[in-house]
Amino acid sequence: MLAELCCKRRPGLWRMLAVAVFVALLGCLRAQELRGHVSIVLLGATGDLAKKYLWQGLFQLYLEEAGKGHNFSFHGTALTATEQGQEVVAKVLESLSCPKDVAPARCAELKDQFQRLSQYRQLKTTEDYAALSKDIEALVQREGLWEAGRIFYFSVPPFAYTDIARSINSSCRPGPGAWLRVVLEKPFGHNHLSAQQLATDLGSFFHEEEMYRVDHYLGKQAVAQILPFRDQNRKALDGLWNRHQVERVEIVMKETVDAEGRTSFYEEYGVIRDVLQNHLTEILTLVAMELPPDISSSEDVLRHKLQVFQALRGLRRGSAVLGQYQAYSEQVRRELDKPAGFLSLTPTFAGILVHLDNLRWEGVPFLLMSGKALDERMGYVRVLFKNRACCAQSEQHWVAEQSACLPRQIIFYIGHGALGSPAVLVSRNLFRPTLPGSWEEVGGPPGLHLFGRPLSDFYAYSPVREQDAYSVLISRIFHGRKDSFITTENLLASWAFWTPLLDSLAHEAPRLYPGGAENGHLLDFEFSGGQLSFSVQQPEQLVPGPGSAPAPSDFQVLRSTYRDRPLVTAWPEELIAKLADDIEAAAMKAVRRSGQFHLALSGGSSPVALFQQLAMGHYAFPWAHTHLWLVDERCVPLWDPESNFQGLQTHLLQHVRLPHYHVHPMPVHLRQRLCAQEDQGAQAYAEEISALVANSTSGPRRRMSLSLPLINRARRVAVLVMGRLKREITLLVSRVGHEPKKWPISGVQPVSGQLVWYMDYEAFLG
Amino acid sequence: MLAELCCKRRPGLWRMLAVAVFVALLGCLRAQELRGHVSIVLLGATGDLAKKYLWQGLFQLYLEEAGKGHNFSFHGTALTATEQGQEVVAKVLESLSCPKDVAPARCAELKDQFQRLSQYRQLKTTEDYAALSKDIEALVQREGLWEAGRIFYFSVPPFAYTDIARSINSSCRPGPGAWLRVVLEKPFGHNHLSAQQLATDLGSFFHEEEMYRVDHYLGKQAVAQILPFRDQNRKALDGLWNRHQVERVEIVMKETVDAEGRTSFYEEYGVIRDVLQNHLTEILTLVAMELPPDISSSEDVLRHKLQVFQALRGLRRGSAVLGQYQAYSEQVRRELDKPAGFLSLTPTFAGILVHLDNLRWEGVPFLLMSGKALDERMGYVRVLFKNRACCAQSEQHWVAEQSACLPRQIIFYIGHGALGSPAVLVSRNLFRPTLPGSWEEVGGPPGLHLFGRPLSDFYAYSPVREQDAYSVLISRIFHGRKDSFITTENLLASWAFWTPLLDSLAHEAPRLYPGGAENGHLLDFEFSGGQLSFSVQQPEQLVPGPGSAPAPSDFQVLRSTYRDRPLVTAWPEELIAKLADDIEAAAMKAVRRSGQFHLALSGGSSPVALFQQLAMGHYAFPWAHTHLWLVDERCVPLWDPESNFQGLQTHLLQHVRLPHYHVHPMPVHLRQRLCAQEDQGAQAYAEEISALVANSTSGPRRRMSLSLPLINRARRVAVLVMGRLKREITLLVSRVGHEPKKWPISGVQPVSGQLVWYMDYEAFLG
Repeated sequence: MLAELCCKRRPGLWRMLAVAVFVALLGCLRAQELRGHVSIVLLGATGDLAKKYLWQGLFQLYLEEAGKGHNFSFHGTALTATEQGQEVVAKVLESLSCPKDVAPARCAELKDQFQRLSQYRQLKTTEDYAALSKDIEALVQREGLWEAGRIFYFSVPPFAYTDIARSINSSCRPGPGAWLRVVLEKPFGHNHLSAQQLATDLGSFFHEEEMYRVDHYLGKQAVAQILPFRDQNRKALDGLWNRHQVERVEIVMKETVDAEGRTSFYEEYGVIRDVLQNHLTEILTLVAMELPPDISSSEDVLRHKLQVFQALRGLRRGSAVLGQYQAYSEQVRRELDKPAGFLSLTPTFAGILVHLDNLRWEGVPFLLMSGKALDERMGYVRVLFKNRACCAQSEQHWVAEQSACLPRQIIFYIGHGALGSPAVLVSRNLFRPTLPGSWEEVGGPPGLHLFGRPLSDFYAYSPVREQDAYSVLISRIFHGRKDSFITTENLLASWAFWTPLLDSLAHEAPRLYPGGAENGHLLDFEFSGGQLSFSVQQPEQLVPGPGSAPAPSDFQVLRSTYRDRPLVTAWPEELIAKLADDIEAAAMKAVRRSGQFHLALSGGSSPVALFQQLAMGHYAFPWAHTHLWLVDERCVPLWDPESNFQGLQTHLLQHVRLPHYHVHPMPVHLRQRLCAQEDQGAQAYAEEISALVANSTSGPRRRMSLSLPLINRARRVAVLVMGRLKREITLLVSRVGHEPKKWPISGVQPVSGQLVWYMDYEAFLG
Repeated sequence: MLAELCCKRRPGLWRMLAVAVFVALLGCLRAQELRGHVSIVLLGATGDLAKKYLWQGLFQLYLEEAGKGHNFSFHGTALTATEQGQEVVAKVLESLSCPKDVAPARCAELKDQFQRLSQYRQLKTTEDYAALSKDIEALVQREGLWEAGRIFYFSVPPFAYTDIARSINSSCRPGPGAWLRVVLEKPFGHNHLSAQQLATDLGSFFHEEEMYRVDHYLGKQAVAQILPFRDQNRKALDGLWNRHQVERVEIVMKETVDAEGRTSFYEEYGVIRDVLQNHLTEILTLVAMELPPDISSSEDVLRHKLQVFQALRGLRRGSAVLGQYQAYSEQVRRELDKPAGFLSLTPTFAGILVHLDNLRWEGVPFLLMSGKALDERMGYVRVLFKNRACCAQSEQHWVAEQSACLPRQIIFYIGHGALGSPAVLVSRNLFRPTLPGSWEEVGGPPGLHLFGRPLSDFYAYSPVREQDAYSVLISRIFHGRKDSFITTENLLASWAFWTPLLDSLAHEAPRLYPGGAENGHLLDFEFSGGQLSFSVQQPEQLVPGPGSAPAPSDFQVLRSTYRDRPLVTAWPEELIAKLADDIEAAAMKAVRRSGQFHLALSGGSSPVALFQQLAMGHYAFPWAHTHLWLVDERCVPLWDPESNFQGLQTHLLQHVRLPHYHVHPMPVHLRQRLCAQEDQGAQAYAEEISALVANSTSGPRRRMSLSLPLINRARRVAVLVMGRLKREITLLVSRVGHEPKKWPISGVQPVSGQLVWYMDYEAFLG
């Protein structure tokens, strides 16, 4: 065995064995191909992840690469004392398995070779790292090799990262000409700030190109196949992979297990940090990114992935539905010694609606879902295409290959579930896909239905040889394929995307679910107008809170007066609905009368709900005959986020179809100057209104708002007042007479039109 | 029998029998309820339609209404001689049937009563009509009744309409106080012009409110239920019946029969005029119209139906796919004595994509389909809702009532097909519908699948008593329900909608199909970007036409020079694709370099294809960073159809998302004047460009086009030349030197930018 590699004992044996290994490996290793020595240091070599996946992955790498002229040494390290650690590692190495097609005798031989190249050593102090470095250098020199590089695999808790990184940087870097790669395991922070901190810390020890952050989902065969599939089927997908063709994308990871025994970790993280921020987001970028011309360029792939983050529309509270399996809080109380009344708010289930604001994906819902204690273990990415066909033939005669009316979908089946293995499924009515030779067409169990159709409706391909994600990734680390890992930019972009949602959900109570098949339809969810909600109403009655705050149903829409004018009061939602209805009625009447309707709207945040209501709920609104004006505008360019026009554009204009020339932004920005008096923007606006609406004699205005005389010539004026903060001013204004200089609103007194006040209960009642 | 009614024979018997009838009718007829006498004149009483449906419908009316105090006489008339006609009618009257729940003896009694009120008479001359009128008056007077009204049912060929109408108007109108209703059967013209002519003709004899144009589909029970269903389920449908929720609407009428024996009619009409222009269009209006508050108001319903036509987007050649069953031409040759080589272009199958440009339906495809010689006889309207759900539960556990992931649809099943009767189907995961008491919940045959789901997934309702469409309509004529008929406005609006398509398809060769189940997927069609196309490629090789015109594949994209500048030539589609690609590449480069791209486009019809290509095919185009300018503009308001800006808006702007302030229409319309020199619009535009693009010293321009100096400062200029008509000018310009005054295009010589000519083969080679 080669555990002695760095210990400088029995060098003669080493040389002899090395030669033996070369000869043994199929004779394909020739001296002139010798590619230098690579040391792989597995930090945390006695831990769970190492025992379960990493040693096996290293063995796999050895099997694949040693025959190609690479020279390896494997160093398992940990804080564990030498003897104890050696025992653990020896046991792990004994349990390694070979691929199915390797005969037992040959397997024993290969394992023996690997064991000789592997050793355990305790790594605690900086001196230990220096010693390791010296041992490696000595070995390389002694064997007449040259050092190619060193890989440090951090399979240790994140709190240990900084110390280890410092020691490696100061004392265990390889010499000039050899590369260093450090492999990091999640979690990479808890939110954007902590991730940034961690990245900055690591950045002081390692260069960006030296760091390989693992998201093991990128090593899952079906996930790793997404880009190659898109590349090899470029022609067929060219017209399909866009918003005109794609109905939706689902990215799903379901677990049957719960968090029992892991609540100390889980309570800190929850499902979004545990699964969505990393695994599902990474998958999303692979599906959504613009395909680079050459996907073998890591740099191009990474740049294109990063562009996806730039296109992601920000998540809001309504972008998510959250659940928690019923037993979770009890598990947390037990495992974390919490008091009897403790209730956790940590979600164990989440559904998220993601939108991309680019032309390829605009409007296409990306649905992300993951949870524990669900009814099955499975994961998949499903691209469902729009059904644009109409079939003349009766449906019982539809043929999978030919009928355009059957669902068209492409599924990257990550594993488990009814199919039981990774797969790529392509509906037969789409196209016959090209997959690499390492994938073969499969039939699956008879009678199997997946995604609404029998499996026979799909071209279904599975890998000839199933490979563990860590084996795949270890090979990619070795080959320097950085695009299979999370760069710092990518990591921070992902956290920047998720952190605002996590913050806004921090105090949200998740829906409780029983777990397993009993969940029924309790966790099904739907999207509408960018919002997610559970499909079925919460069956449990919520415990009423303390006090007896009035519920919306306790009130009718009150009608009274305010400042001697009609007053409409209601809860906000009802109030906005009423105002929108009134505006629509006025619009209809105006268009019937004169063929056009002129609507001047205020800016600020209050009218946003009104804009949305008008945009989404009023199908008969005569937009084509409506002119839109602004009541006031800030002296900023129209593209400034502060501009009132921006709010109008975002919440109303982009949802309805007004002719370009019916939209009248205020000319605050003429000749590249803002509200310059000599540009007479206000005058021009007044003239524009006057020309289109009625005759006017009003002179030039100095402020960029509709003048009171102009407002007072309107047929209808509605004043919307909402929110508790307006209570005080509402009271004040109710007592003010006609003082337009001090209180402009008191000057609003339509000459022959109607003024109506719309106030929500909070503004009206406090 | 009462055939003597107008013949004044045996008046005593008539009185006696009338009394007997009143007593016989369930005793519910009391003298004080007597509602006056109604004469119903069935013109063409010995024809097929009359024999098959109309006499039965009149009998049905008699059964329903006579008991309510109405007094009837039924006059079968035709050109047929009296005796012969009497024989035919007597035979028809003998074959009438009662509803199922009437006992045979009772039925015989009722039929006997009806026969006594019915007679046949020959109607040929105006004098005949005058005599009929006199007879009716005499009867009414004699019996001490008052005349309520007269119904004339035109079951005659359209060429006879005018003469009959003239005679009725001149000689058979009822006296003052009584109404006249004339019932007309299709065809109502062959296109917009002939329909208008027919309408004008009829309009000279009848008032609009006197005319009842029959579309018997409006009497089919499932169709007649559309509005009541929408009305009674208003609350449930309120949030569903719009573009946000509806995925598509299908309106389908499939026949198994072909046109054999009827080709003399069919060859003139074809499937669009026979079925789509009337039946399917009427159904479309019922589905799409804004629901009036009170659907019992005929006037409101008719007005709302008419509004649907205003919202219909014009059909283009690409809006249709056409088919013809293989045996059709042979049938035409045989029946119409055509020469051996005759091939008909008349379509017997059509699929049409209809869009509505209003906010409720914008973007929702309405798919209309009808054909002869298909695999089954059936008709339906299907409203399929968008699937916006994501289900956490594995699909084998989805429950029809609860799972939001199962399809949601509402179907008005017109009849025949697998279900065999009219029905309304509502997916159980939508809502439990309210239907009138005359409809009952049904189960259907076990194992029945409809529209992708087992019937048990639907709430399914069928009429308790199936009623023939003509019975329904005759009752509605009697009750003056004009909304079940086609008004002149409605008719002309429908023809105005269909005629341009019919014209553009006049010389289109339909796809041949074998007929029946053998059609396979041959007639399945798909929509994409507003265009319809068959899903499978035409399997037959088309016979090559005479001559040897070059096929697109015979050419490569040629590259040479024109006027010493690079020249790109290709077939139109390829050329546009190339130009669009080049523009996108330039845009990407510009945005990378400076963060913005300025694109100035020409107007006219040539660039339309380019706009469409850019709008639909370029997902990565950086529109958010692109400024759009016009190269030239006509001196018309921007909303004028002639305006270049309108073309840009229709074909490009409404499909991509540019910020409002990145769109720069030419200021041809300032201060309500067009291109007034003193408004300095050109100067303002030049200044605007200069400010955003670069510094400029160019003075004011007098014409509303970009000045040559400005164009020549562009980084890239592309000149697109397409079509045979441009050949001559292309030749001319190739020989012209620098003569910008005479040939403005010769002045295009970018100072430091690149000029490329894009010409299609027709412009280049002639």
